[in-house]
Amino acid sequence: MKSLKLIKLAVFLIGLTFGSANAQITHNITQEEALKIALAAKNKAVEQGALVNIAIVDAGANLKAFIRMDGSYLGSIDVAIKKAKTSRFFDIETGELGKLTQPNGMLFNIEQTNGGLVSFPGGVPIRDENGNIVGAIGISGGTIEQDHEIALTGAMAILN
Amino acid sequence: MKSLKLIKLAVFLIGLTFGSANAQITHNITQEEALKIALAAKNKAVEQGALVNIAIVDAGANLKAFIRMDGSYLGSIDVAIKKAKTSRFFDIETGELGKLTQPNGMLFNIEQTNGGLVSFPGGVPIRDENGNIVGAIGISGGTIEQDHEIALTGAMAILN
Amino acid sequence: MKSLKLIKLAVFLIGLTFGSANAQITHNITQEEALKIALAAKNKAVEQGALVNIAIVDAGANLKAFIRMDGSYLGSIDVAIKKAKTSRFFDIETGELGKLTQPNGMLFNIEQTNGGLVSFPGGVPIRDENGNIVGAIGISGGTIEQDHEIALTGAMAILN
Amino acid sequence: MKSLKLIKLAVFLIGLTFGSANAQITHNITQEEALKIALAAKNKAVEQGALVNIAIVDAGANLKAFIRMDGSYLGSIDVAIKKAKTSRFFDIETGELGKLTQPNGMLFNIEQTNGGLVSFPGGVPIRDENGNIVGAIGISGGTIEQDHEIALTGAMAILN
Repeated sequence: MKSLKLIKLAVFLIGLTFGSANAQITHNITQEEALKIALAAKNKAVEQGALVNIAIVDAGANLKAFIRMDGSYLGSIDVAIKKAKTSRFFDIETGELGKLTQPNGMLFNIEQTNGGLVSFPGGVPIRDENGNIVGAIGISGGTIEQDHEIALTGAMAILN
Repeated sequence: MKSLKLIKLAVFLIGLTFGSANAQITHNITQEEALKIALAAKNKAVEQGALVNIAIVDAGANLKAFIRMDGSYLGSIDVAIKKAKTSRFFDIETGELGKLTQPNGMLFNIEQTNGGLVSFPGGVPIRDENGNIVGAIGISGGTIEQDHEIALTGAMAILN
Repeated sequence: MKSLKLIKLAVFLIGLTFGSANAQITHNITQEEALKIALAAKNKAVEQGALVNIAIVDAGANLKAFIRMDGSYLGSIDVAIKKAKTSRFFDIETGELGKLTQPNGMLFNIEQTNGGLVSFPGGVPIRDENGNIVGAIGISGGTIEQDHEIALTGAMAILN
Repeated sequence: MKSLKLIKLAVFLIGLTFGSANAQITHNITQEEALKIALAAKNKAVEQGALVNIAIVDAGANLKAFIRMDGSYLGSIDVAIKKAKTSRFFDIETGELGKLTQPNGMLFNIEQTNGGLVSFPGGVPIRDENGNIVGAIGISGGTIEQDHEIALTGAMAILN
């Protein structure tokens, strides 16, 4: 009983220590996780017969991993990276953002900001097992349905 | 008594002369005012439970003050700054500009100019007690209704 | 004795728990800290009689706070922001980076990358009480000696 | 027997004809090769205790694969990509290019072109077994000596 209380006290004190640091904590994707996600996305693309570009950004929206499949569109390099960045910039699936950016929509033409955003499907936030957003994935080269499904498959692979 | 009237007349005439001179007067927001506005906007955001980025530009549309609340969207940094600049570029609330930039609108796609404009709500001109535009404020991170209200609250704080 | 051992065990187990999460942890400056730093820098500038722009970026090199003093150079807005970003991009004081970027230096012309870097004094990393880099500060508008000293004063203010 | 020889001769002659045709053949790195190279580079970096960003571009100087190691400099993302591109743009090791870009050098300030080049060591062309340039690799994050060695190790991995 005593030992349990002591452990609880220790946990509490450690909690205080961590809590009393003002610094804000950001959970971030690791390089190993990013590669695992990229390869899971590639395998899904192969399964679908799609040729895509795969971009992973970290919690700071900075490029963490990238793979371009042979024969995929050259123009999809930038689209894939921008999809991943857009998704993390606003913590949203790019297809959902696109619903708000149409003419007369709430965020019409927001794509002009941040050096260019992409607001059609294929960008998805990546969450860790605790639900923290740790990065995002962007896929470009297939149909938007394929891109979105590949992105989801990739994002889920962090939990494996 | 007479002399006082004459002096007043002289002052009035001199005022006319100076007023008609070529030298242009720019009324400009001060750093102290900009900070007061930014903090008033932040307090309003806290009251609303919104996490926003707050940008203040001066009469020259140059960044004067900026605050990013913890946990606000990364993509909102640029959106907030562009809202403030857009508002001062055309001396208009960004939401009002947006009515003119829709397909078939008078200013369709003007968002492509000036390195990127934002034309949905959240950017508001800042006027001094004489009604002179001395800068503008841009808010991004909440709903567009919240952003607009926070911007208005901030802009009014110059009069306190 | 026993209780000490138990506490040590608890600390060890908690360490394991935190360690077993794959996600990488980034310590990040808070908005409150950023503002405190910016104001400390401004006070130092006033004391020196310098008119400067003050930019604070977070651990992700994204703008967190900004103040422009009245009468400071317009061109210093971008210089201050780029100094802060440069300092965090490479976790270095910008003046130190500049020693490596001269003709025949190891990093000659690295200023062409990352959308433009600044490699003369005035940018300084910000470290928390545990030595973690949580952001950076950039100052522009005074002499480079003034800018550097103001930046140092600002960066230290996080510990107050 | 005779007919077989004749057929072989015909095939040989046709081969000559096609070989001398205008159609240009680009030998290009594959996605699989790019990943193998990136991982070989990463292993070399781990061996050296360096934290680097690794970029591979194809024969068209377009990004093919990218990995960012945990804790590497944020500013090295762009430097690594620009090193790879620079190397393929001029089919040269970036350190060699740097000898020509110094003040009074033949190519002084060529770093200003192509959206920004990097002319210090860490970028190396990738050649296939026939000596054809099929891409390039760029490394950034360690010392320039480490970056260069890691790049060489990566580029050689295509032959394994």
